[in-house]
Amino acid sequence: MKFEILTLFPEMIMDSLRTSILGRAMEKGIISAKAVNIRDYADNKHHSVDDYTYGGGAGMLMQAQPVYDCIHAVLTEDAEKIEEETEKSVRDILKERKQTRVIYVTPQGRVFDQAMAEEFSKAEELIFLCGHYEGIDERVLEETVTDYVSIGDYVLTGGELPALVMIDAISRLIPGVLGSEESAPGDSFQNGLLEYPQYSRPAVWHGKEVPKILLSGDHAKVDAWRLEQSIERTRERRPDLFAAWEAAEQERIEREKAEKLRLKEERRRLRELNDDRSQGTV
Amino acid sequence: MKFEILTLFPEMIMDSLRTSILGRAMEKGIISAKAVNIRDYADNKHHSVDDYTYGGGAGMLMQAQPVYDCIHAVLTEDAEKIEEETEKSVRDILKERKQTRVIYVTPQGRVFDQAMAEEFSKAEELIFLCGHYEGIDERVLEETVTDYVSIGDYVLTGGELPALVMIDAISRLIPGVLGSEESAPGDSFQNGLLEYPQYSRPAVWHGKEVPKILLSGDHAKVDAWRLEQSIERTRERRPDLFAAWEAAEQERIEREKAEKLRLKEERRRLRELNDDRSQGTV
Repeated sequence: MKFEILTLFPEMIMDSLRTSILGRAMEKGIISAKAVNIRDYADNKHHSVDDYTYGGGAGMLMQAQPVYDCIHAVLTEDAEKIEEETEKSVRDILKERKQTRVIYVTPQGRVFDQAMAEEFSKAEELIFLCGHYEGIDERVLEETVTDYVSIGDYVLTGGELPALVMIDAISRLIPGVLGSEESAPGDSFQNGLLEYPQYSRPAVWHGKEVPKILLSGDHAKVDAWRLEQSIERTRERRPDLFAAWEAAEQERIEREKAEKLRLKEERRRLRELNDDRSQGTV
Repeated sequence: MKFEILTLFPEMIMDSLRTSILGRAMEKGIISAKAVNIRDYADNKHHSVDDYTYGGGAGMLMQAQPVYDCIHAVLTEDAEKIEEETEKSVRDILKERKQTRVIYVTPQGRVFDQAMAEEFSKAEELIFLCGHYEGIDERVLEETVTDYVSIGDYVLTGGELPALVMIDAISRLIPGVLGSEESAPGDSFQNGLLEYPQYSRPAVWHGKEVPKILLSGDHAKVDAWRLEQSIERTRERRPDLFAAWEAAEQERIEREKAEKLRLKEERRRLRELNDDRSQGTV
């Protein structure tokens, strides 16, 4: 997986990536990540990338030209392809490379969730475009962006932190990135439920005991207790997730019931067929 | 506002804060932010903070003791209060300090949004507890945490990035933190709608023109166009937000109608009263 982060603050991105789990995964060569400074692509001598907004309003807007040229450069930097591809537009290049996504980090996007993290983790190249100031000229977004993604319904000063958040969520799903001590069975959302409460030594702390069942060594009982806690916690804290889980669960039960009925019916027919055969009627 | 971030990776937090808008706000003395290493509070000679999970399962859990002692130390570090407060439990201290919140960053929390950012921006002290590995022993959470908060329905390797995201969203609402070039009227979510598209120079780029109305200089028309675009964009991209906005809008219209009726009725009564007076019946 190749991550490229287009930003006005490349140092912040690289500092943060190096100290995260990505640092180790980059050293191991499992992924590569690079921050690219959009300012390097401004075609004016002051390297200015922003200007006032048409129609008025406080705040500056990032202009189309440096953003477009930066994306184009990232897409065509691969030496083998330079000659044939530098003449093509960003849109034409992206049409041919289905495994490359250009993600614009914006509160106006689809809201990022675990399913999207899994979807993105299967791509080959993810280019994150981080806006700043009041945002980016609409026209360059229309010509380059494949996915508008938001990490939640709140406003931030820039797209850098959301890009780092998404890269973290995505890369921990790539095989080999997480070590065994960080491995993630039972994670929240994996089964549509929040995670159960967890306890570590000592068995009594501040007068509080660890639930006895966890010390029992009976794995089946522990699993049942954890599932029950997950369900209860989800019902209490996230009625929206609980409703979705309950509907899916209901559907699963109905499906199993239907499948059982179908098998029973099939067996009955086979029996009839056999009976008919043995009676010589077929 | 005082931010304290309790973490196993204090350098990552401070590096990131310094390069963000917070760096400038810290220099100006508008806010203070400090990362505290939970490992410094481990009471074993190896400074170990994690151990296996009771009941089995991959992954390590952060233990209660270092987390508790770290929070206690942060709450009692103010020299004037040390003598009277070091003996008190975290829970008793927090009961007295309503303006101090201990926020545990977890996928199992309330989902952070712009309204929560506004609520938190009015507190005096926000302590962010960043878990790592598989999480934190449930018992210490029960004794210390005032708010369980999630930044979205996805799993991350630690609580550091979400804490930085929340600090960014919260601090940009504190007066004086944002400069005028970053000021935020028309932000997404401010009025329950997504932001309208924006354009900057040049007026024609890659053959695409800026919508003519934005060049008209007619502010009323520009405002009307932007509101319409916001509504349309929200309807298309976020039907959930649109439904909430439409319901609120409907309620506002009903309320205005009721208020008009009430005023009309009041005027009628006053007129009758006056008529009665002038006829000498009162």
